[in-house]
Order: sequence, then C-alpha cells, then structure tokens
Amino acid sequence: MLEELDLKAKMEKDEWEQASKELKRKLGVLQQRMRELKIPMVIVFEGWGASGKGSLISRLITNLDPRGFSVYSVIAPTDDEKRYPWMRRFWSKLPAYGDIAIFDRSWYREVSVARDEEDLSKEELEKRYEEIQEFERQITDDGCILLKFFLHISQKEQKHRFQKLEDHKETAWRVTKTDWKHNRQYDKNLEYFEQMLERTDLPQAPWTLVSANDQRYAAWQVFTTVVRAMEMRIEGQGLEAPVMQGVRVSPDITPNPIKKLSQVDLDRSLDQETYEKELKFCQKRLFQLHNRLYQKKIPLILAYEGWDAAGKGGNIKRVTRALDPRGYEVIPICAPTPQEKNHQYLWRFWNALPKDGHIAIFDRTWYGRVMVERIEKFCTQAQWERAYDEINHFERQLFDWGAIILKFWIHIDQDEQLRRFEERQNTPEKQYKITDEDWRNREKWDAYEVTVDEMLMRTNTDWAPWIIVESNDKKYARIKAMKAIIEAVEKRLDL
Amino acid sequence: MLEELDLKAKMEKDEWEQASKELKRKLGVLQQRMRELKIPMVIVFEGWGASGKGSLISRLITNLDPRGFSVYSVIAPTDDEKRYPWMRRFWSKLPAYGDIAIFDRSWYREVSVARDEEDLSKEELEKRYEEIQEFERQITDDGCILLKFFLHISQKEQKHRFQKLEDHKETAWRVTKTDWKHNRQYDKNLEYFEQMLERTDLPQAPWTLVSANDQRYAAWQVFTTVVRAMEMRIEGQGLEAPVMQGVRVSPDITPNPIKKLSQVDLDRSLDQETYEKELKFCQKRLFQLHNRLYQKKIPLILAYEGWDAAGKGGNIKRVTRALDPRGYEVIPICAPTPQEKNHQYLWRFWNALPKDGHIAIFDRTWYGRVMVERIEKFCTQAQWERAYDEINHFERQLFDWGAIILKFWIHIDQDEQLRRFEERQNTPEKQYKITDEDWRNREKWDAYEVTVDEMLMRTNTDWAPWIIVESNDKKYARIKAMKAIIEAVEKRLDL
Repeated sequence: MLEELDLKAKMEKDEWEQASKELKRKLGVLQQRMRELKIPMVIVFEGWGASGKGSLISRLITNLDPRGFSVYSVIAPTDDEKRYPWMRRFWSKLPAYGDIAIFDRSWYREVSVARDEEDLSKEELEKRYEEIQEFERQITDDGCILLKFFLHISQKEQKHRFQKLEDHKETAWRVTKTDWKHNRQYDKNLEYFEQMLERTDLPQAPWTLVSANDQRYAAWQVFTTVVRAMEMRIEGQGLEAPVMQGVRVSPDITPNPIKKLSQVDLDRSLDQETYEKELKFCQKRLFQLHNRLYQKKIPLILAYEGWDAAGKGGNIKRVTRALDPRGYEVIPICAPTPQEKNHQYLWRFWNALPKDGHIAIFDRTWYGRVMVERIEKFCTQAQWERAYDEINHFERQLFDWGAIILKFWIHIDQDEQLRRFEERQNTPEKQYKITDEDWRNREKWDAYEVTVDEMLMRTNTDWAPWIIVESNDKKYARIKAMKAIIEAVEKRLDL
Repeated sequence: MLEELDLKAKMEKDEWEQASKELKRKLGVLQQRMRELKIPMVIVFEGWGASGKGSLISRLITNLDPRGFSVYSVIAPTDDEKRYPWMRRFWSKLPAYGDIAIFDRSWYREVSVARDEEDLSKEELEKRYEEIQEFERQITDDGCILLKFFLHISQKEQKHRFQKLEDHKETAWRVTKTDWKHNRQYDKNLEYFEQMLERTDLPQAPWTLVSANDQRYAAWQVFTTVVRAMEMRIEGQGLEAPVMQGVRVSPDITPNPIKKLSQVDLDRSLDQETYEKELKFCQKRLFQLHNRLYQKKIPLILAYEGWDAAGKGGNIKRVTRALDPRGYEVIPICAPTPQEKNHQYLWRFWNALPKDGHIAIFDRTWYGRVMVERIEKFCTQAQWERAYDEINHFERQLFDWGAIILKFWIHIDQDEQLRRFEERQNTPEKQYKITDEDWRNREKWDAYEVTVDEMLMRTNTDWAPWIIVESNDKKYARIKAMKAIIEAVEKRLDL
C-alpha cells in the first residue's frame, strides 16, 4: 500500500497558512458540536520514527479545547501493565462520549515495532491482529469515530532527520541506538508495516496513509481528514455508527448446548452434616489452589448472575472465606456511574480485571447488557443482539490471556423467591436487602426467563462455560459452586 | 509502647464464638448505617511479618458487604509509582464517603520495614513522618474514621510461625530470606516500630496496639475497636469529625507579602512587533528547557487561576505550543464529578499529578476550595479556613518531591471583563464560552476580590509563589507568564 504514496508531495508555507486557517477554525467549532452530540473520537498516529507524529499532534491539539481531549504516548508496556491482557491498557484509555483520545503510537505498536523486541510467534501475531480487529469493531459499532494515520517517510529522509536531531545538543538524546537499527532495517520494517496496514484496513476503520516527507503537506492531509470525518458524522448520523458489513474477523463461535431453566431440577439438597463436611473440605482445597494459582500467575474470574434473592452473596462469601484477602477482589456491579455510562458497556469490566495470579469475583456482570438493559430497553435491539458476540470475544480474550473463567447462574424458582422476599421484609437486619425494584423485577419473571435462556444458550462457550447452580437449597448451591471452581482449577493445573 | 502489651493474653474458642457472634452482626448493620451517613473509614493493619494481618482482615471482611469496601495490600512501590510523590498511591486509594478501605500494610511501610531497603537519611525519615501526620490530619478533619492497628508478636512466636509456614508445601514459598533477616534483627525492627508508633500516635488517629500471639484474642481486640469506633461516630457526630487540638505537626508556614489586586497596574502592554519577537524567543527557550526537565526528571506544575474571560486559555495555549505533546498535559478543572464530590477536595488533584519530568498545566485548580466553594457556600467556614494550610502543605509536598510550582493569577479589571463578555456574546463561534453563570459571577466581583486577596496573601509561599499577571493586554500577559516559567526553570537548572 505504501509504495503508491507520492513522497515528493509538498506544500508551500503560504499555501498551508491559507488552507489551515479555515481548517483550524472548523476544528474548534466541530469539537464543540461533537461534545454536544456526545460523539467520541479516537485518532491514532502510527508511522516511522521521526516521521513527525509529535509535532503533528502538537499542531492539531493547539486548536482543540483542552477540556475535551487527551494525548497518550504509547511505549512498551510497564511491568504492571504486563500483568493484564495486553489490550486492557488501550480499553482503559478510550475517550468518554464527546471526548477525543489521541494516540502517539497505539495498539499497533504491538504488531509492528514490538515484533523485534518480543520475537512473536506467527500464532501470537495472528491473535493480536484478531483482537485489534475485534476492538476496533466494538468501539466503532458503539459510535466512536476512529481515524488511523500512518506517517510515511523514506529511509533517506528518516536518516536525515535522525542526524539533524543528533546535531542539536538539546535533542541529541532523543535518538537511540534502536532508532538507528530501525533505520538500517528499513526494508524489514516496511514489510511489517505493510502487513499491518493490510491486515487492519477495515471498512469501519480504514487507514489514512500520509505522505510525510514534507511536514506541512502531512499536516494538511491530517487536518482535512479529521475535519471531514467530524463533519460527515455530525451531518449524517449523530451517535449511530455505520455498521460494518460482512467482516467477521474473529474465530467462529459455536456455543455449547445447555439446559433450559425450566428443565432444571431444583429439588437437590444437602443435609447439614454433609454440608459442613464438604464445606470444610472445599475451603481447605480452595485455599491450597489459590496459593498455586498465585505462584503460577494464573488469573481466575468468577462471574455470578442469578435471580434476586437466589443467594449470590452467601455463595460468594463461602468462596472468599477460603481465600487470602490479598489475592482476590469481589466486584459488585450496580447501575453504571455517569462516567461508566459515558463509555461502551464493556469498558468498566476491562478496568476491573484482576492481575495475573489474582481472583476477581463479579457479583453481577457484563451480562447486564443482555438481561436488564435489554428488558428495560436501556439499549437498542441492535446493541443487545451484537452483545452476545462481543461478550463471547471479550471472554475469549481473557481466556487467551490465560484466565480461568467460570460463570454461575444461581437458580431458584418463583415460590422460593417469594418466600425469601417475605423473610427479608420481616427481618429488620435484612430489610435493606429488599427494595421496590426487586418486587417490580419479580413481576417480569417470565420475560427474564426467556431472556436468560437465550443468554445461556448463546454464551455457553468452551472457554467460559455457564454452570447452572440449583439454589432452592443454599447449602447444595454453595458446595456445587465450590466444587466447580476446584475442578476447573485442578484441570488447568493438571492435578 | 509495645513492652506494655501482655503477649500472654489468650481467648478460648468458646469465648470467641460467643463474643464474636454479636460483634459480627453489628458490623454488618453498622456498615449499612455508615453508608447512609456517608462516613468513610480507613483501617490500617501494621505489624510484624506473620503476625496474622491477612487472616484478621479475612475474618473482618467476611462480615462486610463487598459493595462497600476494598482491601489493599501494600508492597514496595512499582517503578511507575516511584515517579510520583510517595504519598500519592495512598491518596488515590482513599475510600469514597460511606466506603471502607482496609490496608494490609500502608504508608507506615515507608517509615518501618522500608528503612532497611532504602537506607533513609534522618531528614528524609523526618519528612515522611511529617507528611504522614499531615495526611492523617487532613483525612480525619474531613470526617474519615481512621483506625490503626499494630499487631505485635514476640520474636519467638514469629520464628515459630515462619517455621510452620515453611513446613507446609503450600505455604513454604511465602517465607523469604528477608523475613528471616527481619526475625534475626527483631530488636532493631522493634526500635523502628517503637519510634514509628510514638511519632504518629495522634489524638485524631491513635494507634491500637494488638497483642497477637493468640489469634482469637487479636481478632477480638480488632473487632471490638472497629465496632466501637463506628458506633461512637454514628451516635455522636455523623460526618463531622473531632477537630485535632494543638497539634501542629508541620513546618511553620509564613507566606510572603504580595500586592492587593487593587494595587496592580493594569496598563501594561506590548506592541505587536515586540510581542511577536518575544513570543518566538520564549517558545524556543521553553522548548529547550522542556527537554532538559524531561531528561533530569523534574516535574513542572503550572496552576492557572483568574477572572472569567481574563485569558487563561489563550495564555496556556501559547505555553503548550512550545512543548512536546508527549511531555505535558492540560488539566481543565470543572465542577467535581459525583465520584470526586465523594472524596476530600484534594483527592482529585493528587490523582492528576504529572509524572517526574512531565508538565501539568491546571486550568483552574485546588484554589476553587477557597474561592467559589467559599463564596457559594459549597463548604463550611471551618473547611475553607483550614484549606489554606492544607493547600500550603499539599504544595510543599510537591516541592519536596522535586516539582517546580508556579501559580498564575490572570488579572483584568471589571471594564475589560465586560468588553470581553460582550464580544463573546456577539461572536457566534465564541458564544459557547459565555454562560449565565459567568454573568452571575460577575455580579459577585467585590466578594471575589476580597476572597482572592486573602487567598493570595495566605498561600504565596517560597516553594509555590503566586504571580499576578496583568492581562488587560493579553500580549503582555502571555509574555509575562512565559518569562516567569523560563526564569523559574533556569533557576532550578542552575543556568
């Protein structure tokens, strides 16, 4: 793709000053409009070392209201960042609706310049491409404008720029041995870049190749592209993004069969004596396994969903009692905060992931999207329908990172729920646990049941299976959940 | 202090089970009440290695609603954390109002076990004590319950516990060489701990020494202390905390004299030609200096305050144009978000500090507390009055960390403001910049002037001076601010 670019293109100073005046004015006005419409934008600058990314960004942001953008300079991940899935640091930097995030290098660093450093296998590289495509698909589906610029300069021009930097006392330190190595390996890097551009030139997120030997000409290309993209979105569609057609970049997902809720036998129970014996055994075993997970740096993610009053809290408590508090976290998921509402719905879960070797227990989860948000119409049908796929991919990424993932549906029937609601209402210390909303949700039991059945069916994958936990008898439910955890961990540890 | 503790104290299993039943029940109920009253609580666990901090925390949190607490395990700071003031990582972990933060080791790590690692000078240690005292004073003044437990065990008991851990395959890895070293150096560490306890046993935040040879007895002491502290606050005072009397732990602060706003000569101006020449010179110089700051890892903090329409934005823009966008951030301060409102007012500024070598430009600042929050009565008189001191200390901590701090008051008179308001109103592209609130604030000019004069007078310190920037002529103002920055940086760099 890059060889088609005319690197001789130039722009004179006068020409730039005249052309840019209007562009700059527009930028400021359009940014305001985007904020009103709550349209988020991500601008990625990739390209050769010394191709002028920094000064281009500088030119661009001078014309923006600082209340509405952030600039991120992406270098190698820190030791701390390495303890999470590699895309997490980019997810966490996504702009709020109406804001702009500008990346000086980006996730593309990890499939280009990082290839040398890390000696990536072909499979690993392939996986990264897939995850990038999935990421970009998800954020653009969500309404984000994504602009990707690749700044191209010739080998000769790069060499010239490095030398110029080295000649000045103030800037000499900026040129490193690695930079010179990259200049010598220009052809090899060109191949990396070409492959990267081809693999990720997506309909919803195409690359803009920028001829950057001449800085003014480069600026002009970037400014016009940014302004045009903002204008088109503002005029055309507001938040709604064009839906990407026909591009299925990610591995085929065929969920496994699972029981319907109506087929579940809720009569299972345990007597007190067996329960206590089993509990003791399970907790002891979990404690040992937690230690091993920690040493082997394997993360464990437990996702709890279920009917109101089904006993999620008590179930979680029996698990956590066995664990060292330094190695786990319970993450209760309530209605999203204003900040969370201002991002794609998975954003807050990316930010809540455990470090490697740690355990995260989600008390309610990302499945809210296809349950409460669907039923209460907090999202559109298109949004919850594509969420199954997005969630499957999200979990797949966690699995690929090395996580063990288990999802529990804590199940009771309507009679049992009524009994527990009434008990809560009649016990002063438990009254805070029962609200009007619980009663309202109860009235929608049938709608929820259909929804939950569909959710279980569409997201019961090999890498993140659902376990339906019969919970009319809480003792039975607790032991069943703990045993499932033990079994999954033992399997992973080859015990 | 520790020698007075009876390490032989014990509690039988029956006794504990009986006593703890009621304590556990209360804990859950009190936590709900604290959430309703929005009272935050911080619980610190310090003590010897293997003194049982982890299992005590585990016991404690089993009885708490996970929606309301977090556990932090404090180890040596990461490389990234080392690039900020050392207290920042604790500030950022403060609980929201109504929540509980539990620390397994804490800031006290840095004045005890870390003394060995870092070979701290006496002055450095002294400074850390002062900063701890200031931190605890500020958060308790703000209404936070702060409980500090020191778990004490004998040298013999510690040795015994290390051996027991080592004897079990699952836990052997937990005992390190450093642990054994600490056991051998028990007496030296005892001295460290004793000093730490004495220096930080504050009226508002006293230590609770826990005899921990017996785990049940230790748990009982901790549970009763926590329950009692919650009960006392709930019954007595709600959010209002007892104000610490007579303890002035921090270095005397005598601010420097500064002009009253009414004495400022606003007629200063620059002609276009001089302005352009000076601007060019200043931006070039700033660019060079930014490079040097980056290399020497010196952070620069620029705080902009001033009248509405005084020209803060344009002033900041002229500075940033000279800077590499990868090395600075403009932080616009608007009304606090719900999350920010749920924390002490300085919390969000601690979280926005630049890394070492970076520049942070605050467009409005923490001085909101003693201006708008005072005038609009968003805080009490007691709160804004003590804020001067809190702010002086905050800035002093940044200075001690190595930061250059400059605070600009961008100044215009009432006539000039009127002219600019009207111009904004009459220019379509600028209309978004002028709101009803601006007009309302303008009516309170006199009240603001008194307030600003007091603020300047009480916070104009050697380490973070105010610079009044005459801004009726914007060109003059821009050059004055840039020259002040250049001068301060050159001075620090010994140029």
